[in-house]
Amino acid sequence: MAQRRLRLGMVGGGRGAFIGAVHRIASRIDDRWELVAGALSSDAERARLSGEDLGIAPDRAYSDFREMARAEAAREDGIDAVSIVTPNHMHAEPAIAFLEAGINVICDKPLAATPEQAQRIAEAVAAARARFILTHNYTGYPLMRQAREMIARGDLGEIRLVQAEYAQDWLTESVEATGNKQATWRTDPTQAGAGALGDIGTHAYNLLSFVTGLRPEALLADLQSFGAGRQVDDNAHVILRFQNGARGMLWASQVAPGNENGLRLRIYGTKAGIEWHQENPNVMTFAPLGEAKRILTRGGAGLGGGSNQFTRVPPGHPEGYLEGFATIYSDAADLIAGTGDGALLPGIEAGLDGMWFIGACQESSQRGNVWVAR
Amino acid sequence: MAQRRLRLGMVGGGRGAFIGAVHRIASRIDDRWELVAGALSSDAERARLSGEDLGIAPDRAYSDFREMARAEAAREDGIDAVSIVTPNHMHAEPAIAFLEAGINVICDKPLAATPEQAQRIAEAVAAARARFILTHNYTGYPLMRQAREMIARGDLGEIRLVQAEYAQDWLTESVEATGNKQATWRTDPTQAGAGALGDIGTHAYNLLSFVTGLRPEALLADLQSFGAGRQVDDNAHVILRFQNGARGMLWASQVAPGNENGLRLRIYGTKAGIEWHQENPNVMTFAPLGEAKRILTRGGAGLGGGSNQFTRVPPGHPEGYLEGFATIYSDAADLIAGTGDGALLPGIEAGLDGMWFIGACQESSQRGNVWVAR
Amino acid sequence: MAQRRLRLGMVGGGRGAFIGAVHRIASRIDDRWELVAGALSSDAERARLSGEDLGIAPDRAYSDFREMARAEAAREDGIDAVSIVTPNHMHAEPAIAFLEAGINVICDKPLAATPEQAQRIAEAVAAARARFILTHNYTGYPLMRQAREMIARGDLGEIRLVQAEYAQDWLTESVEATGNKQATWRTDPTQAGAGALGDIGTHAYNLLSFVTGLRPEALLADLQSFGAGRQVDDNAHVILRFQNGARGMLWASQVAPGNENGLRLRIYGTKAGIEWHQENPNVMTFAPLGEAKRILTRGGAGLGGGSNQFTRVPPGHPEGYLEGFATIYSDAADLIAGTGDGALLPGIEAGLDGMWFIGACQESSQRGNVWVAR
Amino acid sequence: MAQRRLRLGMVGGGRGAFIGAVHRIASRIDDRWELVAGALSSDAERARLSGEDLGIAPDRAYSDFREMARAEAAREDGIDAVSIVTPNHMHAEPAIAFLEAGINVICDKPLAATPEQAQRIAEAVAAARARFILTHNYTGYPLMRQAREMIARGDLGEIRLVQAEYAQDWLTESVEATGNKQATWRTDPTQAGAGALGDIGTHAYNLLSFVTGLRPEALLADLQSFGAGRQVDDNAHVILRFQNGARGMLWASQVAPGNENGLRLRIYGTKAGIEWHQENPNVMTFAPLGEAKRILTRGGAGLGGGSNQFTRVPPGHPEGYLEGFATIYSDAADLIAGTGDGALLPGIEAGLDGMWFIGACQESSQRGNVWVAR
Repeated sequence: MAQRRLRLGMVGGGRGAFIGAVHRIASRIDDRWELVAGALSSDAERARLSGEDLGIAPDRAYSDFREMARAEAAREDGIDAVSIVTPNHMHAEPAIAFLEAGINVICDKPLAATPEQAQRIAEAVAAARARFILTHNYTGYPLMRQAREMIARGDLGEIRLVQAEYAQDWLTESVEATGNKQATWRTDPTQAGAGALGDIGTHAYNLLSFVTGLRPEALLADLQSFGAGRQVDDNAHVILRFQNGARGMLWASQVAPGNENGLRLRIYGTKAGIEWHQENPNVMTFAPLGEAKRILTRGGAGLGGGSNQFTRVPPGHPEGYLEGFATIYSDAADLIAGTGDGALLPGIEAGLDGMWFIGACQESSQRGNVWVAR
Repeated sequence: MAQRRLRLGMVGGGRGAFIGAVHRIASRIDDRWELVAGALSSDAERARLSGEDLGIAPDRAYSDFREMARAEAAREDGIDAVSIVTPNHMHAEPAIAFLEAGINVICDKPLAATPEQAQRIAEAVAAARARFILTHNYTGYPLMRQAREMIARGDLGEIRLVQAEYAQDWLTESVEATGNKQATWRTDPTQAGAGALGDIGTHAYNLLSFVTGLRPEALLADLQSFGAGRQVDDNAHVILRFQNGARGMLWASQVAPGNENGLRLRIYGTKAGIEWHQENPNVMTFAPLGEAKRILTRGGAGLGGGSNQFTRVPPGHPEGYLEGFATIYSDAADLIAGTGDGALLPGIEAGLDGMWFIGACQESSQRGNVWVAR
Repeated sequence: MAQRRLRLGMVGGGRGAFIGAVHRIASRIDDRWELVAGALSSDAERARLSGEDLGIAPDRAYSDFREMARAEAAREDGIDAVSIVTPNHMHAEPAIAFLEAGINVICDKPLAATPEQAQRIAEAVAAARARFILTHNYTGYPLMRQAREMIARGDLGEIRLVQAEYAQDWLTESVEATGNKQATWRTDPTQAGAGALGDIGTHAYNLLSFVTGLRPEALLADLQSFGAGRQVDDNAHVILRFQNGARGMLWASQVAPGNENGLRLRIYGTKAGIEWHQENPNVMTFAPLGEAKRILTRGGAGLGGGSNQFTRVPPGHPEGYLEGFATIYSDAADLIAGTGDGALLPGIEAGLDGMWFIGACQESSQRGNVWVAR
Repeated sequence: MAQRRLRLGMVGGGRGAFIGAVHRIASRIDDRWELVAGALSSDAERARLSGEDLGIAPDRAYSDFREMARAEAAREDGIDAVSIVTPNHMHAEPAIAFLEAGINVICDKPLAATPEQAQRIAEAVAAARARFILTHNYTGYPLMRQAREMIARGDLGEIRLVQAEYAQDWLTESVEATGNKQATWRTDPTQAGAGALGDIGTHAYNLLSFVTGLRPEALLADLQSFGAGRQVDDNAHVILRFQNGARGMLWASQVAPGNENGLRLRIYGTKAGIEWHQENPNVMTFAPLGEAKRILTRGGAGLGGGSNQFTRVPPGHPEGYLEGFATIYSDAADLIAGTGDGALLPGIEAGLDGMWFIGACQESSQRGNVWVAR
C-alpha cells in the first residue's frame, strides 16, 4: 500500500453519543484512517464495552485520556491523531494532553466552553510540534470550496453583503427537561458555554469566513432564550461589519419550527451573488449581474473550479453531510502524512475566531446590543 | 347590473410611468372600476395624450390635480375614488386635495417622503368623510391572508420570531447615473425620502405586521449606501423587538445580485412555522412542530381558511402580482360601495406606521445603531 | 383614444360557469376589449340575470346565439368578436353562426366534441371573411414564447425528445356522481367527446407543437378510465414520433393525487434542454450541454429573446394564468384591429390538429395500442 | 467486538474503474466489512498494483478470479463474500465460480449481458448454499423504503399509476468515439447487452417494483439510438401494464441535456400520491387526496415509518448516494452474519426480472412496438 492507513484514537464517543459516530464514519469513507484506540468514556466499564463495539483491542480501550496519551505516545504503532468528541467543556484537557504528548489533535467545535479554556488550548498548540484541526465540517462541502475559490479569484467582485443563517427547531420546546441527553449538555452553560450560538452559530460564522475570506471588524448581537427555564441562548440575531466595508447578518436559531439543519449562505458582491443551502448541498446558484442565474452542481458541468477533486461520485449522485465531513478527515490525513498542506483545514485560528464570535455576541447582547469590535 | 362599476380617477401614471399602469390593470381585473378621469401629468400636452391613450374623455383629462378634485366633486357622475401614483413627495398635496373634496383616495406607498407630509395627510384623513387606502398590495395575496388568519386563530402558537426580507438587484450599479427614470427619482432623497427602506422595506415591514398582527416596540438598524454617489440607503439591516417578546430581523436590499423581487416572510411560533416567497406566491409551507411540513397552495386542498374567497382560478393555475393588487382594488370597491368593511385594507394607520419604520431606521443608523422605541 | 376598445360578445359563461369568467378577466387585463353583448345561457331568465351581473345592456342580453349573431351583425356598433365558452359539443353551432354572420370568433378548446363538428367549423372558417382563434391559452405564457423562439433559432440544436405532461387529481374519485357541474359535462362523452385527453391532453399536445414547431407523424396511446362508472378516459399514456426523427411521451391524467394543474414541458435537443412547469410559469431552465444550467425568468436578465414584449410587470413579480390568457386576447385584438399579424395565435389548424390527436389516441387505444399515422 | 467485520473480496474495480470504488466506500461506511482480497484486474501487474493501492496483502491480490475463488474458499480466514464489479458480460463467470465455491456473491447490476448468462447465474444460485445479492442500490435510500412500507400498508390506496424515469445527458454526443472508457464498454452491445435500458432503465424498473410491490404483466417499448454510430439504445420509452390494472410509463435516457442522474419516481393510488427524486433524496412528497401535500424528510418529523433505522445522521443533514449504497452492504452483512433476513435486498429474482425487462423492451421495439407479456 502506497499510503498506509493512519492510526486514529478517539476521546469521547462511547455508547449513546452522537457526534463520535459521525467522526468515525467520516474517518472511514476515504479509507485513510483506522480506529485503533480510544478513551471512549470516563466510566471504565462503558469504555471497555464501547471499545469492544468498535473492534478496538482491549489494551487500547482506555478509560483515562491522560493515560491514553502517555501510552500511545510510547507505542511504536501509536496513534497518528486523536479525535476529541466530548462536550465543549471537555475539549481543553484532552487536547492539551495529546498535544503535549506530540500527538496530532482533531477536535470537535466549538473550540471550548470558555475563553480561558480556549486560550490554554491555543498555548498548547503554539508549543506543540503536533497539528491541531477543528472539525468545522461544512467547509468540506465541495461547493463551499468552489465558492471560496470563485470569490478569491474575483467572480463576485468586491463582496458587499453576507447573509448567513443556521436554523433548527429541535429546542422549540424545553426538551432538556425531558432527559434528552443531547439537549441536556448542549443547554447547560457549564458544559456548552453557549447555546445556539456555540452549537450552530459558530458553524455559520466559520463558513462565511471560510468562503469569503473576510473577518468582521465588529458585531452587534441580540440573543434570546425562548425555551422555558433555558439558561443559554436558543436564538441569536447578529449584525456584522467587515474590514472591507461589507456588511452581514447572521441568524442562528434552535426554535424555528420546520427547520431541521437549515444552514444557508448567501453572498453578494459588486459583480455577482451566490446562494447555497446545506440541506441540498449539491447545488449552488451563481448569479452574475445582468445574466441568467446558473445552477452549479457538485462536480457538474461548467463548474470551472478545483472543487471537483473533493467529490467521490458523478454529479447528480448526491453526496451529503458525511462526505463533507470525510473530506476534513482526508485533508487531515494528507496534512499529517505530508501529502497535503492543509490549506483549507480549519485550525486553532478558526477556533479562536469562533470563540471571539461567541464572546462578542454575548457581550454585545449583555451590554444592550452595542457594537463590539474585534 | 346589481353593482355598477365605480368611477376611478388617477393622479400621475402618464406615459412612461410604471406603477400607474399596474394600478390600472389591478382596477380592471375584477371589473369593479372604470377609469374616467385623470391628472396623469403636470405637463398639459402629456396629460392630454396620456388621457387619449387611456380612453379618458378630453374634458376629464386634467393637467392640474386641484382642478380635477374640484371638478370631479362637482359632477353628478364624478369619480368615486382617485388613485395617486406619483413619486412619494407628491402624495400629500393631491391626497389632501381630494380628501378635502370628499373624494376617496387610493394612494401608492410609502405614505410620503417626509414625516411632515405624512402628518398632513393623516390630519386630512381624520377630518375627511372620505376613505383613505394605501396600496400595500402584497397583503392582497391569498396566502398572506391565509397566514394572517392562521396566526390569529393560534395555529402557530405564540409568535417568537419573524424573518422578513425584500431583496432586489437592480441598483447594484449606479443606474441612476445613466438616466434610468425609475432609478432617478427613487434614489433622490427629496422625491423618495428614503431608498430601499421606503421602496421595498416598508412592504416587508407592512406585510409582517399584517400577517402577525404584531407591532415592534423598538428597532435597531444599520443602513448602507453601496452605490457610488448614492444619497439614499440601498441596503438595510434591521433588528426588531415586538410587544409580546417576539424578535425579528428585516433585510431590504437593492444591491443583491440574483434577486429580482425577493420578498420573503418566515414566521415561527411555539407551535408551528410558516414560510412564503413572493416570487412563487401560490405556495406557502406550514410546519407544525413534530409533524411533516405541509405545502399549502392558493385555494388548494386542506387549506382550511377563508382565503379562498380571494382567488379567481382553480389551484395550480397561478395567480400573481396583479391579482393580489386587484384584490386591494376590489376590497376598496366593496368598502366604498358599502358591500364590505375593508377590514383587511391598509389605510392611514399602516401608512403612519411605515413612516415610523423609515424614520426609526434612519435615526437608529445615524445615532450609531441604537434602539429606537416607538 | 388611439385604439378604441373592441366590442366583445360571449356565448355561454352565465352564472355558475367557470371558463367564461376566465375569458372575461383575460379580455379586460390589457383594456383592449369591452363586453357588450351575450347569449350567456339558453335559459332566458338566466341569460337576462347573467347579463345584468355583467353590466350588459338588456337589449344585448340574448337567450339565443343565432339571434345574437344576426342582431349584432346588423348593428353599427355590433361586436367585433364573440367568445364561445360553452361545453365542447356546443362550439360548432355558434361558431358557424357567427362566422357566417361575418363576426370574428374566439373559441374555447378543444375545437369540438366530434370530428364531424370540427369539420363543419373548419368549413365555415374557410368560407368566412372573419377570423377564428382557439384559446390554447398556455401559448400566451411569455416563457413558452421564449422557448419557441429559442428552438426556432437553434439554441437547442436538433430536437430529439419531448416529454409533455398535464396531471390533475380532481377526478380521482367519481365526483361526477355527486352532481359536480364541471365534472358532469366533462365526463359525458356526448358533451365532451373525450376525457382527460380533450380537456388537458390537447393543451399539452398543442403546447409542445407550438414550442417545438414539430408535428407528430404517428402516435400510439393507452387510455384508461379509472373512475368507477366513468365513460371517458381519465388517464392517457401516449408515445409520439415526429417528422424529424424526434420522439416523445405525453401523459395526461386527472387521477394523480397531489397534482393540481401540473402542465410540464421538457424538450431536449442535440445542444441543450429546457424544462418548464405551468404552476411556476415565471421560471424556465435552459441547460446547454456541457455548461451550467441557467434559470431563465420571465422578463429577466439574460433572456435574450423577444418574449419581453408579452410581460406587464418587472421580473420577480409573478404573472400567472390570467395574464397568459390575456395575451391571447390582446393578440386577438391586434389581429382583428389590424395592428398585429396573429402569427402566434392558435387557430383552426391547431384546432384540427388537436382533434386529430384526440381521435388518433382513441383509435390507437381501441385497436390495441397500435401506431396511428397522421 | 460483538460482531466481527466480515471479509470482503472484489472482482474488477482496479485502477481507473468507477463502480468498484463506490462499492468499496459503501462497504466501509457502516464498518461491517473489510476488504482483504481481490482479483482487481485480469492484467497481473495491474492487479498487483491495484491491490497495493487498497492495502490488500500481496498473496490475496489475485489476477485470476477462479484461482481467487479456490484459494479463498480454502482459507480459514477466507472471504465472507465477493463483490463483482466488472462490466455486465463479465458477471456470470465469476459469480458462478464463487457460488460454486460456496462464497456469497454481491453483484453489480444488471445481472448479465445476455439472458443465457443470466440463466446460468440463476442456476448456480439455485444450486449454491451461498447468498446472491444484486446491488440495485437505490432501494437503500431510506425514503424509498419508507414509500414501500407506506404502499404496503395501504396509505396510497390501490395503486393506479406509476411514472418512473431515469434521465442523464452524458451520452448526448458520441463520447464513446473519444475513448471515454466508461462510455466505450457501456455502449458496446457485447459487453453491456443493452444501453440506457440496462444501465439505468433497470434501476428505474427495479425501484418501481421494489416500492410498489407490483410486477408488470406486459410492456410496450420504443427504443432509440440517437448518438451517431451508436449500437445500443440511448433512449427508451416504455408503457407498462401491471397485474392489478395499474398502468405506468418509464423513460430512460442518456441524451437529455441538463439531466445528471435524474431518477424520479411518482406513484399514484386511489387515496394518495408520492413523488421522489434521487438528486435530492432526503425529501419525498406525500399527497393524501383532499389534504395538503406533506414534505417527508429522511428521518424527519411525522414520518411514521420504520425507515428511520436506515439513517445515520439527523434529519436535515443530507445523506446521499453512498449512504444508500452502504445500506445494501450492511443489509448484506446482516444476512450473511445471520443478524438479518435480507427481506429488502434485491437478489436473483430481481436480477432475472430486470433481464426480462431488458429483453421484453428490446423485443417490443424490434417487433414494431407491440405488447410483450411476461
